[in-house]
Amino acid sequence: MPNQFKPYEHKAAYYETDCMGIVHHSNYIRWFEEARVDFMEQMGYSYQQAEKNGVMIPVLSAQCDYKLAAVFSDVVLIIPKIEYFNGFKMTITYKAVRKSDGALLANGETKHCFTDLKLSPIRTKRDYTEIYELFKSCEGVDLI
Amino acid sequence: MPNQFKPYEHKAAYYETDCMGIVHHSNYIRWFEEARVDFMEQMGYSYQQAEKNGVMIPVLSAQCDYKLAAVFSDVVLIIPKIEYFNGFKMTITYKAVRKSDGALLANGETKHCFTDLKLSPIRTKRDYTEIYELFKSCEGVDLI
Amino acid sequence: MPNQFKPYEHKAAYYETDCMGIVHHSNYIRWFEEARVDFMEQMGYSYQQAEKNGVMIPVLSAQCDYKLAAVFSDVVLIIPKIEYFNGFKMTITYKAVRKSDGALLANGETKHCFTDLKLSPIRTKRDYTEIYELFKSCEGVDLI
Amino acid sequence: MPNQFKPYEHKAAYYETDCMGIVHHSNYIRWFEEARVDFMEQMGYSYQQAEKNGVMIPVLSAQCDYKLAAVFSDVVLIIPKIEYFNGFKMTITYKAVRKSDGALLANGETKHCFTDLKLSPIRTKRDYTEIYELFKSCEGVDLI
Repeated sequence: MPNQFKPYEHKAAYYETDCMGIVHHSNYIRWFEEARVDFMEQMGYSYQQAEKNGVMIPVLSAQCDYKLAAVFSDVVLIIPKIEYFNGFKMTITYKAVRKSDGALLANGETKHCFTDLKLSPIRTKRDYTEIYELFKSCEGVDLI
Repeated sequence: MPNQFKPYEHKAAYYETDCMGIVHHSNYIRWFEEARVDFMEQMGYSYQQAEKNGVMIPVLSAQCDYKLAAVFSDVVLIIPKIEYFNGFKMTITYKAVRKSDGALLANGETKHCFTDLKLSPIRTKRDYTEIYELFKSCEGVDLI
Repeated sequence: MPNQFKPYEHKAAYYETDCMGIVHHSNYIRWFEEARVDFMEQMGYSYQQAEKNGVMIPVLSAQCDYKLAAVFSDVVLIIPKIEYFNGFKMTITYKAVRKSDGALLANGETKHCFTDLKLSPIRTKRDYTEIYELFKSCEGVDLI
Repeated sequence: MPNQFKPYEHKAAYYETDCMGIVHHSNYIRWFEEARVDFMEQMGYSYQQAEKNGVMIPVLSAQCDYKLAAVFSDVVLIIPKIEYFNGFKMTITYKAVRKSDGALLANGETKHCFTDLKLSPIRTKRDYTEIYELFKSCEGVDLI
């Protein structure tokens, strides 16, 4: 685990906007995924590494509260946080913040479980100790 | 308002799948929007009509619980329901059901408010009586 | 093969629009795929059937000329045509037409080859006679 | 105009993959747009600046030849080049290259014209001399 995590940066693309002139709300769910992937890479445990270990972390639920709209070419910081991890289930929260002025654009949350490649639940505390220790050590860590 | 609403049908496209072999979870948020648009058309009050009246219904939050994954070419029924409407705020819930066997794939919810084109809140009960009556009459209506 | 093919219908979704107020140009490439999938189902040889037979039909190139923009909620007919098929390579052309008035929105083309699941080329004329006969019989067929 | 342009970098997102396990082919058209936007920013003439000047540069056609597939988390360099510009029409070509080993993934091309906000053609050479000089000076410039 690194000493410090960096927030994930996403620049809003033209194709992500809609005819209301703002970024379509569905894209935040995608940005959360990008930030989650990046966070796990920073933790030293990438999606690819997980799959090599026979571990999957599917999404059980996703949620987003929209505060202010991003527009084309806004640079948005997505700041994930492992809010809860018990070895089998995990809740990650996200803040989406406009980089230029720090304005909060959205708050979100995804829930996950840890499974094998057949999507059967696994107990990381017993069977994947290293994964357990790693995620546990990142629980509650604030990036900013 | 029609006597009966029809659920919205969406056939899962190839480009909506991901490398896990299933429909990417972000697409359900988009399908909910498609179903919402369709539902309002069935109500006799389309998005375009709303905009002509100077009314917008932005998304305040979106949420989805994933139960079973849809795969490429599954026909999915999206069944929206106006769970709550008070003239200014509205909550819509959604069921995503696999058409072939009726299996529940996902439950979702979006929250909205009614605004003018400058995104200032409007009170439909006072200022847009017809809209108020229409949405109120559809509150709690189950499609299935 | 059916006596007659039906064009594929796609209703432009809100999330497919961009901040220019029109459907983002990348979506036509996706609609072509939807129409191709639908056309093969109408031919009686779906993507899933192909994969069961160990056959893949990857995209070698894609192209689109934009004439008129579709906007939110336009119903667009996508009309594919197998322009060329020689047992290994295939060219499909597409017309995207606004249903309400028949206006041509876009012309497109995709090129494909036939491969096994490891993406090695196959000669359908020799090794998959039924596939060869079917696609050959649909070559040049105009839907409208 | 800067002395040197940098290629645009895009890391392939999970949601950009499809159930064939690779990045869906439609996304390259989107990446080309991201690279075009970035290139114009590097030129010192952003999309937003263009719109302020009452200038639009719509897409007339888009094309992509696929050579090798990108997969999840590949970092892809998109290298645009103004192949042709005559003051009214412009052709941009693109190379998509895998950063890790320089492998060519795709070649593409988009064609554009310059219009006012009502989409009527404009002659930049006569009416927008600065734009004309800028784009002309970048015609044929290779990033790599």
